[in-house]
Amino acid sequence: MTKKVLKFGGTSVGSIERILHAANIVKKEHSQGNEIIVVVSAMAGKTNELISQSNSISNKFDKRELDVLLSSGEQITSALMAGALNELGVKSKSWMGWQIPILTTGEHTNSRIKNIHIEKINTYLSNGGVAIVPGFQGISESGDTTTIGRGGSDASAVAIAKIFNTDSCEIYTDVDGVYSTDPNKIPVAKKIDKISYKEMLELSSLGAKVMQPSAVQTAMMHDIPLQVRSTFTDRKGTQIFSQENIDYTKVVTGVAYSKDDAKITLLGVQDKPGVAADIFEPLDKNQINVDMVIQNISSDGKTTDLTFTIKRNDFKKTLATLSSNKKIKFKNLNHNDKVSKISVVGAGMVSTPGITFKMFRALADENINILAISTSEIKISVIISDNDTLKAVKKLHTIFDLD
Amino acid sequence: MTKKVLKFGGTSVGSIERILHAANIVKKEHSQGNEIIVVVSAMAGKTNELISQSNSISNKFDKRELDVLLSSGEQITSALMAGALNELGVKSKSWMGWQIPILTTGEHTNSRIKNIHIEKINTYLSNGGVAIVPGFQGISESGDTTTIGRGGSDASAVAIAKIFNTDSCEIYTDVDGVYSTDPNKIPVAKKIDKISYKEMLELSSLGAKVMQPSAVQTAMMHDIPLQVRSTFTDRKGTQIFSQENIDYTKVVTGVAYSKDDAKITLLGVQDKPGVAADIFEPLDKNQINVDMVIQNISSDGKTTDLTFTIKRNDFKKTLATLSSNKKIKFKNLNHNDKVSKISVVGAGMVSTPGITFKMFRALADENINILAISTSEIKISVIISDNDTLKAVKKLHTIFDLD
Repeated sequence: MTKKVLKFGGTSVGSIERILHAANIVKKEHSQGNEIIVVVSAMAGKTNELISQSNSISNKFDKRELDVLLSSGEQITSALMAGALNELGVKSKSWMGWQIPILTTGEHTNSRIKNIHIEKINTYLSNGGVAIVPGFQGISESGDTTTIGRGGSDASAVAIAKIFNTDSCEIYTDVDGVYSTDPNKIPVAKKIDKISYKEMLELSSLGAKVMQPSAVQTAMMHDIPLQVRSTFTDRKGTQIFSQENIDYTKVVTGVAYSKDDAKITLLGVQDKPGVAADIFEPLDKNQINVDMVIQNISSDGKTTDLTFTIKRNDFKKTLATLSSNKKIKFKNLNHNDKVSKISVVGAGMVSTPGITFKMFRALADENINILAISTSEIKISVIISDNDTLKAVKKLHTIFDLD
Repeated sequence: MTKKVLKFGGTSVGSIERILHAANIVKKEHSQGNEIIVVVSAMAGKTNELISQSNSISNKFDKRELDVLLSSGEQITSALMAGALNELGVKSKSWMGWQIPILTTGEHTNSRIKNIHIEKINTYLSNGGVAIVPGFQGISESGDTTTIGRGGSDASAVAIAKIFNTDSCEIYTDVDGVYSTDPNKIPVAKKIDKISYKEMLELSSLGAKVMQPSAVQTAMMHDIPLQVRSTFTDRKGTQIFSQENIDYTKVVTGVAYSKDDAKITLLGVQDKPGVAADIFEPLDKNQINVDMVIQNISSDGKTTDLTFTIKRNDFKKTLATLSSNKKIKFKNLNHNDKVSKISVVGAGMVSTPGITFKMFRALADENINILAISTSEIKISVIISDNDTLKAVKKLHTIFDLD
């Protein structure tokens, strides 16, 4: 007897037809003798509709009530999915966060799942029923409805897989897996069959919107094998598990890029403790999300240069924040609001020398200037001019044998 | 300290603007030192939208899941209302049926409220908070979500007023009270300031869609004073309470009518026990709602004539049922599918002789033929030809001093 979590994202349950389609997938899995817990997102667009309603009332809408409001989205899908399965002749029942209960850490709009009572659902599963559980929601110890952050249905699915100790956790979505780069822009992009949690984390932080990074992280911590696959095709999808289980034939797994970035360099910043904090604290307060931060060792022991990247639409706000804050001191400011970030990711990089050099040589061959560099254990990122983005991605995709 | 239930119907919370408007009414009542429990319906159109979604999945959608689905409508309004009040500076919190809890008799889609735990909300009220409670929903003893039937938010409001022992129960709606007849068709119709439960019951069963009859009945049983008033004007509305508290200056309180009726008379039906049951049982099985039933004493001791009315769109189905059922025997069938029912209602009628005669004379003066008559303690209803409806209502409205 295999126990499975099947999670359906917003587009997979975005209409009545799609809910019925997803219910048929569940029926098939159930008829093969599996015990199934289905985790559902709100129907595509629903959460945004509810958020927009709350914003029309207040731009600081009460967070407790926002949780009550937003949790209705997954409640609706759960009931429709259970109704659809019953219509297909599959015994099925929905369980809201408060009914199970799913206990969270209690912060409104940003909780984490702490514990799930498994008894009632396990009894139902062993009696042949399919349990439908709404993602994204739970209750606090004090009995308030709490949600676990935007896109949190992935995290719900992983937590449920962990606590129910299921054999697998399958994430049904509108893409058929994780790709070596963006298949919409780079036609030679290839679906990746197997990828490690770490690589997946790097790729999803870099903009591959296949799974929520925090959910991948939880899966990694507890070694829960994931499978990302399309609701709309029968293709196999991408398996995500720990690095040891992957037989790497390629050093680089994928090439990711983010456009719409901007780069700011502060020249002649004092090289003493607390300076970086003085710079980034006001940015954080103004809700400016800083991505890459690069600081070289000081050459004269007194001053240094600090480079960081932000989203392009935060560019003006960032300049205003930097210039209006008297604590922030520097000699010169150098900026470029038309840059992009290109990253090559691969668990095999750790043990393979020369990847950095190979990447830089390839970009140089294409006459692409590197504006900044940052590396981690399994990733190399460079900042280049926006115009060169696709040219760079194509070149790197080719030289690292991904085509 | 006055404790009040304020109930807002679907059109009163039909948009974000209207929710904010309703929240301002609540704020005003709260600022006058009242303890307030707000009961809300789903936003206008929401319940129908959800029902239509469930129907697209199955025409016999699982009732347990339908309750989970439909209860989301009131959940959404509750959260938006609580958020709106907080935005207006009024401490407010929503409480779902499961959080209070509101315990019901447990039937899916058709429960009644059995008990409500009042402690948590009472503590909150006495600490100056406004409690928002969704109408229409509760939970069964076994912890399932249950709803209390369409339009059940009125019943929720009355049950809450009863169990919390509030001083009043105000029903905010899109009309400014109960009228002596339909103000859209008869411009001389007058708003009734005070009306008894019984009269209100007769009028609402007769098609005045101001309040759900079952909610009025509960209020009558427990002597809970109601007030029906408009969310959109400051006018006083209609007070509904027990007959003893009303000083009647008029014998007739209102004239109601229902169009789209049809009349069927079975001539020469056998006059023996069980015949009526034989006739109405198959109609009931085919979900045909029979309204008036009139049967005279048999003149020959052997056969009698039986007249009944139904909705016009059930007419063909009724004829088919009558002719296909072999147990139903009669000599002749006489029918008219273009009739309407006119009723005069008034608690003062009990003690005032001659009302029936006055009514019949008035109709005769207008050359209107009466096809059937039925009377109760506080109501006289006649069936007439559809064409004469408005002429009859106007005439009766005038002769009973309602203009």
